[in-house]
Amino acid sequence: MVLTVDVGNTRIKAAVFEGSTVLESFVFEKKELEKKIKKILKKFQNCSDLVVASVGTIEKQSFLAFEKQLKLHFLSHEDVFPFVNKYATPKTLGIDRMVLAAGATLQYPNQNRLVIDAGTCITYDFIDENDQYLGGAIAPGLRLRYESLHNFTARLPLLDLEEPQSYIGNTTAQAIHSGVVNGFVYEIDGFIDEYRANFSNFIIILTGGDADFLAKRLKNTIFANSNFLLESLNQTFQYKINND
Amino acid sequence: MVLTVDVGNTRIKAAVFEGSTVLESFVFEKKELEKKIKKILKKFQNCSDLVVASVGTIEKQSFLAFEKQLKLHFLSHEDVFPFVNKYATPKTLGIDRMVLAAGATLQYPNQNRLVIDAGTCITYDFIDENDQYLGGAIAPGLRLRYESLHNFTARLPLLDLEEPQSYIGNTTAQAIHSGVVNGFVYEIDGFIDEYRANFSNFIIILTGGDADFLAKRLKNTIFANSNFLLESLNQTFQYKINND
Repeated sequence: MVLTVDVGNTRIKAAVFEGSTVLESFVFEKKELEKKIKKILKKFQNCSDLVVASVGTIEKQSFLAFEKQLKLHFLSHEDVFPFVNKYATPKTLGIDRMVLAAGATLQYPNQNRLVIDAGTCITYDFIDENDQYLGGAIAPGLRLRYESLHNFTARLPLLDLEEPQSYIGNTTAQAIHSGVVNGFVYEIDGFIDEYRANFSNFIIILTGGDADFLAKRLKNTIFANSNFLLESLNQTFQYKINND
Repeated sequence: MVLTVDVGNTRIKAAVFEGSTVLESFVFEKKELEKKIKKILKKFQNCSDLVVASVGTIEKQSFLAFEKQLKLHFLSHEDVFPFVNKYATPKTLGIDRMVLAAGATLQYPNQNRLVIDAGTCITYDFIDENDQYLGGAIAPGLRLRYESLHNFTARLPLLDLEEPQSYIGNTTAQAIHSGVVNGFVYEIDGFIDEYRANFSNFIIILTGGDADFLAKRLKNTIFANSNFLLESLNQTFQYKINND
């Protein structure tokens, strides 16, 4: 049994796997880290491995206490991954993006893969059919867009994510929902169209906290799986123990 | 001679007009307001009117001192505009967007107009061929996107606007440039396509600080004029004195 933990920019997501099956998944705040993991391990006492990917401010030290109970794998660029990394600055490639690329490579062999992770940021990662990781793009996620409109202007309110009624917003709130949500959807479809124009034999995986909200709004057909990062963490770990 | 002043979220832009001709234009920081306007008025002593639109934190009081020299017109929702405002919350419609809509209505009669202002925020404003202002959208501008990526994540750097080399960024910097700039361009083209699918007899005006950078990157043909807001301020004022 494996406990996977994804420390993102905003929250922590975790899941317990038995083989490739998710037994239970969790979402919590960073400050709850120790308490929540203790609770999970109390419930799943057969967990033998703790696999962590952290892009946030929580470092390896915070997990060392759990080494008494199970084996810690704090993933880094030094680990073995199932793709050839063509990124020109491999050490600055976020570990979350490496794990997503690993999951896509292992789960969807012999094809071009575009992984779109819509969380705090939206990231695009492309692994070609020869298992070469070529790079991608990073832009602010939905929530960041709502927040930056409020934080950097004198008069715009902070709104919660909401489906816009039209592309022509006829109130300030509707104008913001249209700008943020419709703009975001146009942007994702624009990137997908660009990849499609250049590559065939193609799969698109959409993940992250906003995946389900976005999936039905995109004109392009995509495969939405909000657990893809945690599944990829589990697969990266399985790959690691088989190839180390 | 008219001095127009646009107080935005980030900076102040100003221009001196003789009829519809710009004699000189200026960009400065908010803290320089008094000094810069004094300097402009010293150079252009024939200025009879000062026309101000402010969406920022600078209120009417800051301009009252100039009333000794020339007539102050601090535009508000109470003024007369050349379009029918169909916004459901007209008092929350930014005065900058009202001025842009007025300029588009006066300068491009008898057609559908979409005004895109790419500054701190990007705003879309639509005035139909019957001179009805219907609303639009608001999203973070280019600079806000770069800043929010840095401010809300643990490890992403703050970058200056730069042309991305490809849609597949192969370094962290290139991934950010692609996500921000390409994403922004896809988003604008997506909005334009949506309007085009619903309206014909159409003009698109692109303005704001990033207008020139964006104009050559959009697939849609647009009319770029980075001075459009200041020109519209002048036209709104001319309309006001003829119709008050």
